[in-house]
Amino acid sequence: MSLYTLENPVFVTYAIAAALMVLKIMGQGWVTVYRMIKVKGGYASPEDLRPGRINTDPDPTQLEPNDYVDRSRRMHRNDLENIPGFLAAGFLFVAASPPLLLAQILMYGFVAARALHAWAYGTAKSHETRANFYTLGSLIVIFMALYVLAAILFF
Amino acid sequence: MSLYTLENPVFVTYAIAAALMVLKIMGQGWVTVYRMIKVKGGYASPEDLRPGRINTDPDPTQLEPNDYVDRSRRMHRNDLENIPGFLAAGFLFVAASPPLLLAQILMYGFVAARALHAWAYGTAKSHETRANFYTLGSLIVIFMALYVLAAILFF
Amino acid sequence: MSLYTLENPVFVTYAIAAALMVLKIMGQGWVTVYRMIKVKGGYASPEDLRPGRINTDPDPTQLEPNDYVDRSRRMHRNDLENIPGFLAAGFLFVAASPPLLLAQILMYGFVAARALHAWAYGTAKSHETRANFYTLGSLIVIFMALYVLAAILFF
Repeated sequence: MSLYTLENPVFVTYAIAAALMVLKIMGQGWVTVYRMIKVKGGYASPEDLRPGRINTDPDPTQLEPNDYVDRSRRMHRNDLENIPGFLAAGFLFVAASPPLLLAQILMYGFVAARALHAWAYGTAKSHETRANFYTLGSLIVIFMALYVLAAILFF
Repeated sequence: MSLYTLENPVFVTYAIAAALMVLKIMGQGWVTVYRMIKVKGGYASPEDLRPGRINTDPDPTQLEPNDYVDRSRRMHRNDLENIPGFLAAGFLFVAASPPLLLAQILMYGFVAARALHAWAYGTAKSHETRANFYTLGSLIVIFMALYVLAAILFF
Repeated sequence: MSLYTLENPVFVTYAIAAALMVLKIMGQGWVTVYRMIKVKGGYASPEDLRPGRINTDPDPTQLEPNDYVDRSRRMHRNDLENIPGFLAAGFLFVAASPPLLLAQILMYGFVAARALHAWAYGTAKSHETRANFYTLGSLIVIFMALYVLAAILFF
């Protein structure tokens, strides 16, 4: 029997957490788009200064860094540094057949940590607040990867 | 029986699309390498100014930003913001046992959207053109993630 | 029978390599954190200048680029450009039921290539040294993706 099926509650837990994290990554892209349109700036490519539907009134300053837009890009970057690691570690974790409760705590815990990290980063809370949520998410991924290695060692 | 086998046509669809997207990510790295060598610049690290096989005639201006090289880096970054989400969402999508035709439309549609995005970005087409292909690819990933969540909810 | 189980030696090979690569990605994040704390600088967000536990003596120069910190960010970026591709290609490779020895050579070879790349980048070795290890890792991922496509074609 396969562990990677919706009949396995641990896999269902992973699928829910992973789907939410995919939505977070893709959603952050749209936040950047929204912010670029709102401030009409923070563009990254020279051709974005050509007049068009998106940019009706081009101006060279639109290519200058804009913190409102860059903040969303930094959030996106932080997601890319953490979420793909979770997606892979969580997938491997399912193969290690962990207890369901442990999987739920770790995986939903990761989702909560990243949601709170996004809140702290998006509203420019203190470095300490943001760092706490980053730390929680990162330690969960590291724990899952070590759990998989231990499960193989003692299989 | 496992869904994750080459005997499952939905998985085969995913495997083809995912392998092509992995080649796109890795290939973009080589485009950056090619462009750095061609313009002898756009380097990111101070040690790249040391004379050697790659850099026979070092010059401090080689560390300055170069749009020809940076364009490839931006394309790579855009890939990293979109393709890992597709790889994960597509994997989960297979578990939801979707109709084959739907999987083919979405997954090959994503591959086509990203290929066209690369063409539009690489040739500096208008922001609108690039944005259309980005939007198509992003919506496909979001749809697949939501489909998985719905499949679990109504399983 | 599923190929994605710890009873399949090829999958075990993948799980070990993938778990190590997840630890590499997450660990690089902590190297950046360590370096930011050590030099008290290289921060990316304006709010990091607020006084607090992490930053007891704020100074506007802390937001300026710092090569010691940026080097770790560039290493992280290079990881993100290469490791997610490996995680996905390796997963697909398992489905193609390759010979165990081939899987071990490619997957442990990738881990070794990335470890050596990190050593070369972290200690600012020559561009050529770094490029060799990058090339080895990248070609392994490309080979695995092509192997999967060939396996499907000739299935």
